[in-house]
Amino acid sequence: METKVILDTVWVLIAAFLVFFMNAGFALLETGLCQAKNAVNILAKNFIVFAVSSIAFWIIGFGLMFGDGNGILGLGGWFLAGTDNSPATGEAYSGVFSALSWTGVPLAAKFFFQLVFAGTAATIVSGAVAERIKFFSFIMFSFILIALIYPVVGHWGWGGGWLSGLGFVDFAGSTMVHSVGGWAALLGAFILGPRVGKYRPDGSTKPIPGHNMSLATLGTLILWLGWFGFNPGSTMAADPAAISSIALNTNMAGAAGCLVAALISYLVLGKPDLSMILNGTLAGLVAVTAGCNSVSVAGSVFIGTIAGVLVVYAVLFFDRVRIDDPVGALSVHLVNGVFGTAAVGLFSIKGGLFYGGGFRLLGVQLLGIAAVGAFVVAASAIAWLALKATIGIRVTAEEERSGLDLGEHGMEAYPGFAQNSPEPSMMDIT
Amino acid sequence: METKVILDTVWVLIAAFLVFFMNAGFALLETGLCQAKNAVNILAKNFIVFAVSSIAFWIIGFGLMFGDGNGILGLGGWFLAGTDNSPATGEAYSGVFSALSWTGVPLAAKFFFQLVFAGTAATIVSGAVAERIKFFSFIMFSFILIALIYPVVGHWGWGGGWLSGLGFVDFAGSTMVHSVGGWAALLGAFILGPRVGKYRPDGSTKPIPGHNMSLATLGTLILWLGWFGFNPGSTMAADPAAISSIALNTNMAGAAGCLVAALISYLVLGKPDLSMILNGTLAGLVAVTAGCNSVSVAGSVFIGTIAGVLVVYAVLFFDRVRIDDPVGALSVHLVNGVFGTAAVGLFSIKGGLFYGGGFRLLGVQLLGIAAVGAFVVAASAIAWLALKATIGIRVTAEEERSGLDLGEHGMEAYPGFAQNSPEPSMMDIT
Amino acid sequence: METKVILDTVWVLIAAFLVFFMNAGFALLETGLCQAKNAVNILAKNFIVFAVSSIAFWIIGFGLMFGDGNGILGLGGWFLAGTDNSPATGEAYSGVFSALSWTGVPLAAKFFFQLVFAGTAATIVSGAVAERIKFFSFIMFSFILIALIYPVVGHWGWGGGWLSGLGFVDFAGSTMVHSVGGWAALLGAFILGPRVGKYRPDGSTKPIPGHNMSLATLGTLILWLGWFGFNPGSTMAADPAAISSIALNTNMAGAAGCLVAALISYLVLGKPDLSMILNGTLAGLVAVTAGCNSVSVAGSVFIGTIAGVLVVYAVLFFDRVRIDDPVGALSVHLVNGVFGTAAVGLFSIKGGLFYGGGFRLLGVQLLGIAAVGAFVVAASAIAWLALKATIGIRVTAEEERSGLDLGEHGMEAYPGFAQNSPEPSMMDIT
Repeated sequence: METKVILDTVWVLIAAFLVFFMNAGFALLETGLCQAKNAVNILAKNFIVFAVSSIAFWIIGFGLMFGDGNGILGLGGWFLAGTDNSPATGEAYSGVFSALSWTGVPLAAKFFFQLVFAGTAATIVSGAVAERIKFFSFIMFSFILIALIYPVVGHWGWGGGWLSGLGFVDFAGSTMVHSVGGWAALLGAFILGPRVGKYRPDGSTKPIPGHNMSLATLGTLILWLGWFGFNPGSTMAADPAAISSIALNTNMAGAAGCLVAALISYLVLGKPDLSMILNGTLAGLVAVTAGCNSVSVAGSVFIGTIAGVLVVYAVLFFDRVRIDDPVGALSVHLVNGVFGTAAVGLFSIKGGLFYGGGFRLLGVQLLGIAAVGAFVVAASAIAWLALKATIGIRVTAEEERSGLDLGEHGMEAYPGFAQNSPEPSMMDIT
Repeated sequence: METKVILDTVWVLIAAFLVFFMNAGFALLETGLCQAKNAVNILAKNFIVFAVSSIAFWIIGFGLMFGDGNGILGLGGWFLAGTDNSPATGEAYSGVFSALSWTGVPLAAKFFFQLVFAGTAATIVSGAVAERIKFFSFIMFSFILIALIYPVVGHWGWGGGWLSGLGFVDFAGSTMVHSVGGWAALLGAFILGPRVGKYRPDGSTKPIPGHNMSLATLGTLILWLGWFGFNPGSTMAADPAAISSIALNTNMAGAAGCLVAALISYLVLGKPDLSMILNGTLAGLVAVTAGCNSVSVAGSVFIGTIAGVLVVYAVLFFDRVRIDDPVGALSVHLVNGVFGTAAVGLFSIKGGLFYGGGFRLLGVQLLGIAAVGAFVVAASAIAWLALKATIGIRVTAEEERSGLDLGEHGMEAYPGFAQNSPEPSMMDIT
Repeated sequence: METKVILDTVWVLIAAFLVFFMNAGFALLETGLCQAKNAVNILAKNFIVFAVSSIAFWIIGFGLMFGDGNGILGLGGWFLAGTDNSPATGEAYSGVFSALSWTGVPLAAKFFFQLVFAGTAATIVSGAVAERIKFFSFIMFSFILIALIYPVVGHWGWGGGWLSGLGFVDFAGSTMVHSVGGWAALLGAFILGPRVGKYRPDGSTKPIPGHNMSLATLGTLILWLGWFGFNPGSTMAADPAAISSIALNTNMAGAAGCLVAALISYLVLGKPDLSMILNGTLAGLVAVTAGCNSVSVAGSVFIGTIAGVLVVYAVLFFDRVRIDDPVGALSVHLVNGVFGTAAVGLFSIKGGLFYGGGFRLLGVQLLGIAAVGAFVVAASAIAWLALKATIGIRVTAEEERSGLDLGEHGMEAYPGFAQNSPEPSMMDIT
């Protein structure tokens, strides 16, 4: 028993470290896929957001999410205070975080693991609102998201709330993390509006290529690595069969998403586009996150395959409806978070439609997707609009043109390097 | 017993994650040491190759390598199917993967750990054929290598085949991984021919410097980190004495290779060349891989020292014979994979020549090196020539000049940055 | 008991791998914050320094630090030789490394974990002496530091020496690692003098911006990750309560330092400066290192808060006294290493002033800070001056102007990229 506590704690902490490192992955992916003139701003956003999440989740978020309360909200455990005799579990547990009494690790480990998940949700937003959001407004929104919005739906699904009571399955967070970040990002991108010049009056879209594909590729490999903490770590216990199988499923879905997105981008765009290859991998990883512990290896490959198709068309779709998402965060995290959660209803060997489980699980999954989506859309709309009405959320067009690095931070990312002269398409920019 | 399974599984998975991360190391090292105009292509190759390996090894490679069969080939376990009661071990094991019944972890963990090794072999090829190979042909060769070539020799040495029966020692893969990748790379580089303009009519060699030494250095540090999974993880068990000693030996060989290559490059080239320092470290790491569990710390330092000398002269040698290897992959992985395997016959405290073991072990080592080399040379020659005769393996000279990024992927790695004007040595390029 | 050895060894090794990876963090942070023309040199320094440390610590450093001896020095165990029956502990231990007999892991694991710590101390120096030190002189100083200087004070505090006997508390090395590196760096920066043109005759300071903030940010995230090995690993045992709590405290101090430095830089400099955000995080991490196992979460947040203030003013201070530290290493490691060690005397729940412990612990902490500082200042002054008098420590002004990459290594980091034309402030230089 004591040995089990040690094993579980070591596993949970190492998994948490890997998930923490995803901050670097997100930072590099977003930076690489955006323009050099905004690199400092993007790096600063992605870096500080985890510090903001750490403080917000410690003060209030963790209590709202996992504190004892009712089916809607946790109502205690602010600042990690309150009784708690972890690593005692089950009947032996006494404390205010009953929803996490199933995992036998110290409270600090529970909190830290959940914190790195919360941080992921906040980081997802960053990509979709990049290259035009005010630095301070992003910080404020991140605080609100992690202190208030993420924990509420988290309570529903993981904190002992009403959704988990219905049998909703989201093992490692396709919905709870990725779609939450995705919905909040969608509202942000919509309310902010597109970058200046992105959508031309004639209906065409101006490509704004990322400035450093080396960074973007490294970032994606770091994210892939981090997912080996994200999914297998969500056992919150060193269960050998589970963690091995989850690690493998995670990898195979990512691999399938990668290859399929390469193929589809070749067929649709004429060339195997590297950013599609990267996003296809992430799409597969996001999609398998909900069901990684309940699907077969072949099921994971199927899920990754569909994700690899979805992500390419989703990128094209968002441009068609003129929602400007510089890095494809919506296509990866929102679309495939939703798909992956629904896919559990199809592919789960424990009640999925394709395994003879009928429509019940699928129905619950769709209900959960809708409920979480509705709440996060409403709550983040309120937050974004309140910020817009007060401190403002968008930099000036002039600052956007010259770059947020100078405007927001007074510095450049690559001061020694000569940039190409202003693009001939400058006139497109109003 | 159950606790041992947990411990071994946690260790094997974490080691596998570190080895997985070597994909990032190889990607950055190769990208950094090549030209900016080919960076997207190199990143895409190094990224997608692990996805290709994942699928190829799942479908057929793992079965060929570890499935029960005969001394030459495994003959079952395609798609990981077939009976298997892992983590049962030894007598208690029943299933089609008897060759891995010595390690008490779930089948998914065995597969995943072996998969990341297979991926390494495929990645090694990438560097030697860089800046001129067609993207799709590289993908095809990688599939063949991991589905068919790597598993066959892997079966000989690790899958219960004839070579292991003779007492051949290659603990973590100086031969099975590094030289396999190296031989396949040698054939690829030879059949492709050198990059346009690399070797001038007057017999001199044109230096083509890498475009980003920051990436190359980071990549090498990631590889060094990954080796702490590669070598200590090859125990496939959390044996404290073994994993500690292997980690230390691995580090000391890398450190010695680093310092010696710095010194030799200073003596031979006049300056301590950073790419030699990086490759010297990798040479030491490759060389100690075969014997990391059977040599002393001092032995590791010796092995690293010799590797650091070998790598510098090997780089010069391959240029002299006009085999164009843009990143030094042959000098690192082939030359030192061979040397390291032979070094076991000299430095092993369990039967090495210098420890009174006579010539028997050394002889078996040399036989193994030769047999593996002969097979991989033959098989990869067939594969490369078949690809050359069908879909072609080399991009056009025009595409090579303008860069594979535009030609193969329709994008640039660093679109915002001004490049230096065409080199005055342009006339050298035919 | 055997299980405990396995668990502790797995934990110690994984922590050591994370700390090893900090070499990449330091390399990228320093490279990113310096100029492109010196990037190869900085990368080479940061890469080779761990190889140098590995050899120096193996030959002599580890014996001086942990070998049995007297209160001042260890006197045995060179080359890791000598009797040692680790992982036996306490009374059961017999061997020459009694000071490490409290941790039940194999000797190779003890050495490797201590080695990566020693490597950290050496790397800290690199940043403060960047852009003007001779490559070979830096290697020599690093060898002296790790073979002789670091181990002596390490013996005092961690190797059974006089300082630990007094009750001095430095759990993971705010003093033993960070301030040791910091004092040695201070002497180096002082004796070398500032970079050409940094301090103008009119009393003003010339800003010399770093060339790549993406690298600097990635480097800092890698360092933050590495700290989860550095601090929780210093238990050298997989104690679940301790490692969970230490990981959390480490994170919260870093987060607080990050946010506070962002705020202070906004208030003082007018913008949230990214390099201050990065250094603020590191300042919080350094400061909590001494007390991470003996302060509360709130205490960690306090310590990080103060560190975030200190680091901004320290950067301004060192420029005012014209000690040129290109990356802020002194402000991070020296100032906050000292502060963090003193903070244990205030915030420790085991004897700190604020927890009713009176002034005794605080007094011992201040004594330890002073003693370590005095020795390292004296010893490194001798080392730097001896190197200066013999092989010289500073490159020529001409080489400094054209960049150390060409001068020391005969290569460029980014040969394909156009640099901005010489700065108009060129006349300032001279």
